[in-house]
Amino acid sequence: MDFTLTAEQRDLQQRVRDFIADTIIPLEQDPRCGAHGPSEDLRRDLIAKAKAAGLLSAHVSPEYGGLGLDHRSKAVFFEEAGYSPLGPVALNIAAPDEGNMHMLEAIATEEQKERWLRPLAAGEIRSCFCMTEPDPGAGSDPSMLQTTARQVGEEFLINGRKWFITGAEGATLGIIMAKLEDGRATMFLADMNSPGIRIERTMDALDSCFPGGHCVVSFDNLRVPASAILGELGEGFKYAQVRLSPARLTHCMRWLGQARRCHDVASRYAARRMAFGKALGQHEGVGFMLADNELDMHSARLSIWHTAWVLDQGHLGTHESSMAKVIASEATWRVADRSVQVLGGQGVTGETIVARIFSDMRAFRIYDGPSEVHRWSLAKRIFKRNSA
Amino acid sequence: MDFTLTAEQRDLQQRVRDFIADTIIPLEQDPRCGAHGPSEDLRRDLIAKAKAAGLLSAHVSPEYGGLGLDHRSKAVFFEEAGYSPLGPVALNIAAPDEGNMHMLEAIATEEQKERWLRPLAAGEIRSCFCMTEPDPGAGSDPSMLQTTARQVGEEFLINGRKWFITGAEGATLGIIMAKLEDGRATMFLADMNSPGIRIERTMDALDSCFPGGHCVVSFDNLRVPASAILGELGEGFKYAQVRLSPARLTHCMRWLGQARRCHDVASRYAARRMAFGKALGQHEGVGFMLADNELDMHSARLSIWHTAWVLDQGHLGTHESSMAKVIASEATWRVADRSVQVLGGQGVTGETIVARIFSDMRAFRIYDGPSEVHRWSLAKRIFKRNSA
Amino acid sequence: MDFTLTAEQRDLQQRVRDFIADTIIPLEQDPRCGAHGPSEDLRRDLIAKAKAAGLLSAHVSPEYGGLGLDHRSKAVFFEEAGYSPLGPVALNIAAPDEGNMHMLEAIATEEQKERWLRPLAAGEIRSCFCMTEPDPGAGSDPSMLQTTARQVGEEFLINGRKWFITGAEGATLGIIMAKLEDGRATMFLADMNSPGIRIERTMDALDSCFPGGHCVVSFDNLRVPASAILGELGEGFKYAQVRLSPARLTHCMRWLGQARRCHDVASRYAARRMAFGKALGQHEGVGFMLADNELDMHSARLSIWHTAWVLDQGHLGTHESSMAKVIASEATWRVADRSVQVLGGQGVTGETIVARIFSDMRAFRIYDGPSEVHRWSLAKRIFKRNSA
Amino acid sequence: MDFTLTAEQRDLQQRVRDFIADTIIPLEQDPRCGAHGPSEDLRRDLIAKAKAAGLLSAHVSPEYGGLGLDHRSKAVFFEEAGYSPLGPVALNIAAPDEGNMHMLEAIATEEQKERWLRPLAAGEIRSCFCMTEPDPGAGSDPSMLQTTARQVGEEFLINGRKWFITGAEGATLGIIMAKLEDGRATMFLADMNSPGIRIERTMDALDSCFPGGHCVVSFDNLRVPASAILGELGEGFKYAQVRLSPARLTHCMRWLGQARRCHDVASRYAARRMAFGKALGQHEGVGFMLADNELDMHSARLSIWHTAWVLDQGHLGTHESSMAKVIASEATWRVADRSVQVLGGQGVTGETIVARIFSDMRAFRIYDGPSEVHRWSLAKRIFKRNSA
Repeated sequence: MDFTLTAEQRDLQQRVRDFIADTIIPLEQDPRCGAHGPSEDLRRDLIAKAKAAGLLSAHVSPEYGGLGLDHRSKAVFFEEAGYSPLGPVALNIAAPDEGNMHMLEAIATEEQKERWLRPLAAGEIRSCFCMTEPDPGAGSDPSMLQTTARQVGEEFLINGRKWFITGAEGATLGIIMAKLEDGRATMFLADMNSPGIRIERTMDALDSCFPGGHCVVSFDNLRVPASAILGELGEGFKYAQVRLSPARLTHCMRWLGQARRCHDVASRYAARRMAFGKALGQHEGVGFMLADNELDMHSARLSIWHTAWVLDQGHLGTHESSMAKVIASEATWRVADRSVQVLGGQGVTGETIVARIFSDMRAFRIYDGPSEVHRWSLAKRIFKRNSA
Repeated sequence: MDFTLTAEQRDLQQRVRDFIADTIIPLEQDPRCGAHGPSEDLRRDLIAKAKAAGLLSAHVSPEYGGLGLDHRSKAVFFEEAGYSPLGPVALNIAAPDEGNMHMLEAIATEEQKERWLRPLAAGEIRSCFCMTEPDPGAGSDPSMLQTTARQVGEEFLINGRKWFITGAEGATLGIIMAKLEDGRATMFLADMNSPGIRIERTMDALDSCFPGGHCVVSFDNLRVPASAILGELGEGFKYAQVRLSPARLTHCMRWLGQARRCHDVASRYAARRMAFGKALGQHEGVGFMLADNELDMHSARLSIWHTAWVLDQGHLGTHESSMAKVIASEATWRVADRSVQVLGGQGVTGETIVARIFSDMRAFRIYDGPSEVHRWSLAKRIFKRNSA
Repeated sequence: MDFTLTAEQRDLQQRVRDFIADTIIPLEQDPRCGAHGPSEDLRRDLIAKAKAAGLLSAHVSPEYGGLGLDHRSKAVFFEEAGYSPLGPVALNIAAPDEGNMHMLEAIATEEQKERWLRPLAAGEIRSCFCMTEPDPGAGSDPSMLQTTARQVGEEFLINGRKWFITGAEGATLGIIMAKLEDGRATMFLADMNSPGIRIERTMDALDSCFPGGHCVVSFDNLRVPASAILGELGEGFKYAQVRLSPARLTHCMRWLGQARRCHDVASRYAARRMAFGKALGQHEGVGFMLADNELDMHSARLSIWHTAWVLDQGHLGTHESSMAKVIASEATWRVADRSVQVLGGQGVTGETIVARIFSDMRAFRIYDGPSEVHRWSLAKRIFKRNSA
Repeated sequence: MDFTLTAEQRDLQQRVRDFIADTIIPLEQDPRCGAHGPSEDLRRDLIAKAKAAGLLSAHVSPEYGGLGLDHRSKAVFFEEAGYSPLGPVALNIAAPDEGNMHMLEAIATEEQKERWLRPLAAGEIRSCFCMTEPDPGAGSDPSMLQTTARQVGEEFLINGRKWFITGAEGATLGIIMAKLEDGRATMFLADMNSPGIRIERTMDALDSCFPGGHCVVSFDNLRVPASAILGELGEGFKYAQVRLSPARLTHCMRWLGQARRCHDVASRYAARRMAFGKALGQHEGVGFMLADNELDMHSARLSIWHTAWVLDQGHLGTHESSMAKVIASEATWRVADRSVQVLGGQGVTGETIVARIFSDMRAFRIYDGPSEVHRWSLAKRIFKRNSA
């Protein structure tokens, strides 16, 4: 049991912290931060700055241009990156690209890696993960998958409709989950500019931190060759799990950084703003909220670190990452909400960054498994363990 | 003790419910619903429809063109109106106009009423209430008022800066709180087109339901005649209380309607959407959230009705309206938040109205007294009562 | 909509309040208050005092010696009675007798009423309600009933085992729920001194407010005549509902009184006890807890009053009484818990009455339907309503 | 960052787990477990068993007969010990003796250690810590200390009154906090059988796990020699802090074990007990509560481990131990409360151990600093940090 950061972790922590403070935060009011995420133009500027700072794609192995961090080092690095809503995009560790790169590195063929992983890791292209479907298709329950992939000779013909496809607009790579005629799920890699892929529209979303927004995408007789299969045929759900545990955890890391940002903004305001004869922060009613923020962030951080350690031991960590997801997503949400409340009018307007983070963060309790689905999984395990 | 609605209340309830369902909800996707609230053009269309339906300005006395409802009837009427974010604007019972009209009717001179109340009640003009100021001015603590009114001959010269002034852009009437040289506060009525009044900018806000948005307004040697004084000189804070108790309560009524809308959307989705082998709403994890919604709405409604009754007895109802504000604002927020969660991806996007209501509603726990200020007032009363 | 108490209600409220304050509270430290409830000796003394005050059996009709209050008047009366843990016993309105009397008056034959209701209403005897059974028998799910009643000639032979039978020790009347050979449930009235009834033991319970404690009772070939059937054969579950809605609500009324007691003790302590330079109650951290107590009690009271009104309209009120049960049981528990916390060391010891009420109250979130069962019922209704 | 247990920690964990399961749990129904804690007779039996198992006084250095565990190893060991309410007493690591031994080892003279620490570590005698006083004396605010120590020649004359003195009845050693004539606080070691010490009474408490209960103790011209001073004259408050941080943390460790016990009992019941057609634990409404239990225990454990690591680095850990105290005391309480709820009637009676742990545990959110005092300290640090 040891909570010491290594010298390298401390060094990275400081470098990212400085990079965010000096280089990224000044860009937060850039008009290219649109309702559907930073523009491609802004994204490229951000990537260039991170590259110059030697901090790009920390989770990818050096072979493909990254820093090759293990999960625990990522926990430290990503939290710092998340201190600005633009940080993860700049450092090329934002969802969904980060998880996609992770999965490609774990599963893809050398040829696929050269074609897709290398430019992704360099921040030259973006990707999207096409799994979620409109009712009655796959949502929290992936077994309801409706999109089909029919083998026709050497090729596969993909038909279906997806939505909430983050980053689809402007993405070059699409990873598409579809079911074969025998019902098994498979992932395919496709160029998003292929004939047969159409982005119907970009959805209006509470969040505005993901480049490309969230889209409705349809596949109409999309043709992909056998070489586009990711991993083994029929193993799509297994790979989704490979992607999910760490992807879920990196979300927790990044949002913890953003919660900390909210808390810092609120704490500084509370130390300065007077009301009823003393500083806001000297009112216990406010001070207790800030104390609860620190308690919540502490619990979130420890559960993230613990799960990162489990993953670093080579375990799948399904149980632990479920726990970390629920603890961190609910704790960071409470932090953001209390920070809004402490800031009063300024918390619900663009006067500080907090309102934006608040809007960005709400979906975190839903994606990568809503709290309810994780509690359900935990409950099933408890039931099973006690029924033996 | 009697919870029966009168025949008239039931009739109004049904008429408003039908009006909202048939006439207003179809307009919710109108492109004139902008980030800073419905455009003036849309607002006039809405007002015209409500006028045609005979439902305009329910809280104003018939003498000035309203329906003259008492507080309990308003509780029924306003909840129905709130079922659409556009409802209160259409029915001319939205903040801040509704509270302003209420105060004018209670305090203004006949001449002032003719000039301002009559066109306000007809929905021909809009108004704003200029009280809140940037740090270090008046916020939750009104005693920190910085804006000054200096008497110069027959006139007053007003100087200062306000923010979070809802509806200032496009308003014709401004009610301005300023302090006299002797430190006492006074309210002045001014035409917002007067020289000396400048709208610096419209703030970016989480909500988008108030016409005119929230503005920063500065007064630079604004000249107003003595006839612009609202009520007695130096009684500004007392009148703010006259405005506040009922204004706070009508907020509760309207937001309860919007919470109910969220709950209905979520409940219908949960009854239809399948996951893991049954409808979402048949999962206890989801069903319990919907049950909690009903419990919360029930508590909110009862506390609103109770305070309305207290006000109808002629009491100021400060204590009761504080309780209703905390109970209703926190309960309706939980309802909106749970509804988002039940809807999953659709809850955090524009696919349903719920995400918009969620964003609109967050500030409700802050304005007209944050929960913390009300708890503080309640605590002081408890302390005093037990110290005797 | 009217929250006015009638003159009669106000008069009763004051009389009960005075009676509790002057006559009952001084007896709270009486050594005859044992771990399994007040002794029969103490109970008779208490009853005598209430009789002398003309306040006995308020819920029973005058014909059988009570005050014949409707549900709304009971809401006022019972809350005052609950201000002392001994109050309901003294006034003969404690569970389970109160609910049993209510059911007898509604369902029993004239002969049965003379034999059982009259002495019950006079406080001369006590009764118990034998429904709950050990695993795998009837608990929250009454359909799991195991106790059987087999017809043998003119008689019924009852066999089975019950537990959590409140007040069984010392009771004269037992109302026994059993299932017939055809599976339908029936209630039987039996003298608890009959051969065939054995009280196996008194269970150790957190609460100590119910005379006779909670017992394990077995029926071994208990013989009862057909005249012992309560109401119609096979209608046991229907009658349980007749008993349940009001019984559940009177629990809410009484516990609200006890929550108010806790709050008053804590508030007075907080107004007096100094810490860190000011009175406890002047610390917002404590004051906010007391404010929350008042918010919770307000919500509980309003939902109780509302349901009482529904019952007074002649409705079964299943939905409303479920809501009131969840709201009131959870709200009053929070009040008791916060009061303990405010009192610190004195809250967890016998230095004040609060620790005793805290222990007494915990089971209230469980009996007459745990919160989870009520949420489940509410959720089913919401689902059904939205599936149409 | 490493969450691996050492081989020695795993070995101890298993040995304590087995010892509790095989040797201690069977004694939980021993009639010598009284309302004021296990009798001295039972305590000696328990100590003898732990001694035989080689598991006595794990926190004391081997020199004085203990196992010399560091804080992290204690975290593992004490959690297992807490799995039975009798475990900490048996293993001689219960409050207040455990904290007293810790402080004696850190501060006392060799002579004092021989006289008091050695027999304490052997479980031959018990001790108490006399700090808390009745209103208006020292409670959460130690600066309100009223007990005085007046120097008279070579001796000190102690006068005052203490309450909530855990374990005073039957203790041999009393550590008494008193203030000198110059206002500084000092700790004195006294034989509780000295003339001048009187145990006025044992208080009725919700808990029953501490041998000797909680007592009111008065000092009436108690004479102690200079050799009875613990550490330096006037440094009493500083030493209280030396005692407090670790003592607070060991409470968290032990209560986490008891929370786990509650959860296990409830989980097994939920896996077995049927209701409404399936096992309780298969109802999401129940399963989610059990999932929340695991989330809460996980957060509590991680914050305990983290603080133990901080203390093992030689830091005072005031901030971290405050966080761990709030997180663990509130989380374990929720676990106990949910376990009661899941168990239904069995949760509120002596049918399982859970009701007893529930009653024992309530005070944990109060002693060693109520949650409110810790939040207040955290808030002050946040304010200070942000005011610079």
